[in-house]
Amino acid sequence: MVQSRVERALERVLPAADHTPQRLHQAMRYAVLGGGKRVRPMLAFAAGELVAAPPERLDAVACALELIHAYSLVHDDLPCMDDDVLRRGRPTAHVEFDEATALLVGDGLQSLAFETLAAGRLADDPAHQVEMVHALALASGSRGMAGGQAIDLAAVGASLTLPELEFMHILKTGALIRASVALGARCGSPLGRAEAERLDRYAKCIGLAFQVVDDVLDAEAPTATLGKTAGKDAAQGKPTYVSLLGVPRAKALAQELRGDAHAALEGFGARGARLADLADFIVTRAF
Amino acid sequence: MVQSRVERALERVLPAADHTPQRLHQAMRYAVLGGGKRVRPMLAFAAGELVAAPPERLDAVACALELIHAYSLVHDDLPCMDDDVLRRGRPTAHVEFDEATALLVGDGLQSLAFETLAAGRLADDPAHQVEMVHALALASGSRGMAGGQAIDLAAVGASLTLPELEFMHILKTGALIRASVALGARCGSPLGRAEAERLDRYAKCIGLAFQVVDDVLDAEAPTATLGKTAGKDAAQGKPTYVSLLGVPRAKALAQELRGDAHAALEGFGARGARLADLADFIVTRAF
Repeated sequence: MVQSRVERALERVLPAADHTPQRLHQAMRYAVLGGGKRVRPMLAFAAGELVAAPPERLDAVACALELIHAYSLVHDDLPCMDDDVLRRGRPTAHVEFDEATALLVGDGLQSLAFETLAAGRLADDPAHQVEMVHALALASGSRGMAGGQAIDLAAVGASLTLPELEFMHILKTGALIRASVALGARCGSPLGRAEAERLDRYAKCIGLAFQVVDDVLDAEAPTATLGKTAGKDAAQGKPTYVSLLGVPRAKALAQELRGDAHAALEGFGARGARLADLADFIVTRAF
Repeated sequence: MVQSRVERALERVLPAADHTPQRLHQAMRYAVLGGGKRVRPMLAFAAGELVAAPPERLDAVACALELIHAYSLVHDDLPCMDDDVLRRGRPTAHVEFDEATALLVGDGLQSLAFETLAAGRLADDPAHQVEMVHALALASGSRGMAGGQAIDLAAVGASLTLPELEFMHILKTGALIRASVALGARCGSPLGRAEAERLDRYAKCIGLAFQVVDDVLDAEAPTATLGKTAGKDAAQGKPTYVSLLGVPRAKALAQELRGDAHAALEGFGARGARLADLADFIVTRAF
């Protein structure tokens, strides 16, 4: 079971709660080990299955991805950003601890992600591992996730077109999801160029589908189910797939993207089964 | 001249100001290109001279170090941290832009540091480059710089002993300064173990000297000279070398550390001249 395996790996990678500075390390563990769907680790493991990647390498990649994701949640929840008090059904880090600690939690988790990705041998050729570090950094930074967050902030109360909304999400969530698939696939025997391109097409589709589904859930699911504040997007006047398309067309788009993702996997045969299942898992959350 | 060389390298490494998201990229450039002493890059270049490192490799290492340093300043200046309005003689990033942008500036600069350190070939053996990424991440994170910042925050209004104060600074500024020397020295022909240890002893001494001098300057120099708010430590009730030792003994400690740094360089001969000069430069700022 990938989730429990990744949970144990994260436990090991995070500094112990009694390691100085203790409050910071307690808060880092609180932010990361508090559950979560672990979608990015699951994608990395599923992509690793394509290339017969050793599980210990996938542990490290999965941890790095989840640490980046967790840091982004902690910073996004801060008062100067989304100002949210609930995450994964518990108080957000700055509510449970304090704002300065939450800021440092995010900073420290980002460093820890790169530390983890550089701690052991993750590719037969170390030059490939350097490329993996580069890919994760690019996906995380101002031309990836952090950049998408900046566009998201600027979009509050503004009206975006569908292509503008899509561009924002390609950066904000898509970049790290694509990196999850790409990094998992770098841990084993190298894919050919055409195969790598098809895998990336799959990753783009599910990255977008993931966001469409998130918007549907934000509009439809109650806070208790969601584990975070529901209906927040509408309340903040944020453009979403639901505000632009309405729920029925947003759901149809998610299904279409699922179909595209499946199509991209054709040719991988049984090796792509877990990736196909994940496309289903991601989309059917909304149904 | 290292400073102007590094300035040009940083210009190239930072995304262009008209690259989307533009406001974020403008703010990142504002935070990094606004001057600064570039001590860490100078240390990397000086250490690189020990091992005849190619200057292009040192450019990348120097940029990565300076990007980490710049991100830490932007986050440290935020209202929930030191709440400062002046840095390098100009408004801090969250004053010039806004708090959310400043948060993302720091996040994006940290990613960019690792992107830069993984962008090209920086060591003859790529496995060494993976180790360089690991070293920078460790020096930046919760057991390095970010951890030191957490201890610093907890120390406001508290009374620290001299060993406690030293431990805080070993993390807060010492870790990145040691990494600056170590990474510069990894860009060329490998040092022997004994040489590497002596180099690290040098780095520890100047890391601490740097902080002692900073405390003296904070107590003695006017804001205009400093380019940041002077007398802030005392105003915030922060323990410093000056509050624990007084100015004369703090200056004597800085001189002692300079002597230790010079002693550690014995045996390197002329190759260590630039490192010796930097020890002088760092300490004599306070005299």
